[in-house]
Amino acid sequence: MTKFENITIEKKANVYFEGKVTSRTILFEDGTKKTLGVMQPGEYEFSTSFKEEMDITAGHLEYKLQGEDWKTIDGQGVFYVPANETFQVKANSVVDYCCSYIGE
Amino acid sequence: MTKFENITIEKKANVYFEGKVTSRTILFEDGTKKTLGVMQPGEYEFSTSFKEEMDITAGHLEYKLQGEDWKTIDGQGVFYVPANETFQVKANSVVDYCCSYIGE
Repeated sequence: MTKFENITIEKKANVYFEGKVTSRTILFEDGTKKTLGVMQPGEYEFSTSFKEEMDITAGHLEYKLQGEDWKTIDGQGVFYVPANETFQVKANSVVDYCCSYIGE
Repeated sequence: MTKFENITIEKKANVYFEGKVTSRTILFEDGTKKTLGVMQPGEYEFSTSFKEEMDITAGHLEYKLQGEDWKTIDGQGVFYVPANETFQVKANSVVDYCCSYIGE
């Protein structure tokens, strides 16, 4: 899917880590939410409230879920993070991502 | 206006200046287009194809249109750039912006 239709977008960016990670929130008619984001190169730790699908669309990223080893995505790839967890990422380039929040 | 409704968004980011400037393209039902973008601190030169409304929603930006002096936006402000021109900006912080492309 290269575009999302019939959505609402918040005008202002979400800003994390002094702007090294930014995203835009989009809302779908069915009430679901995604964020479209960009990470500058760097190391970050995120926390989840909901289960998240992290869909990497461009870049070179290493990520580590709790209790798992580091894994690498080069270019495109998807991983899932359970709700109420922290996970670590190392962006080795500018990383373009789409994060989907998945209700229980 | 804090959000835009009934729009289509392209999933992948537009990436400029090695990712120091990124944006997302949103398309409206009437065929018009905007980009929602973020600049990392730095100096950039942009070129326009259409007349552009640059709506700065957060950050500290200096900008210079052709034949004019440098001007400053601290926080929020709007400026217009004619079609087929270049303009210079100095982002002194992370800058959040909304660019509207205005047809003739």
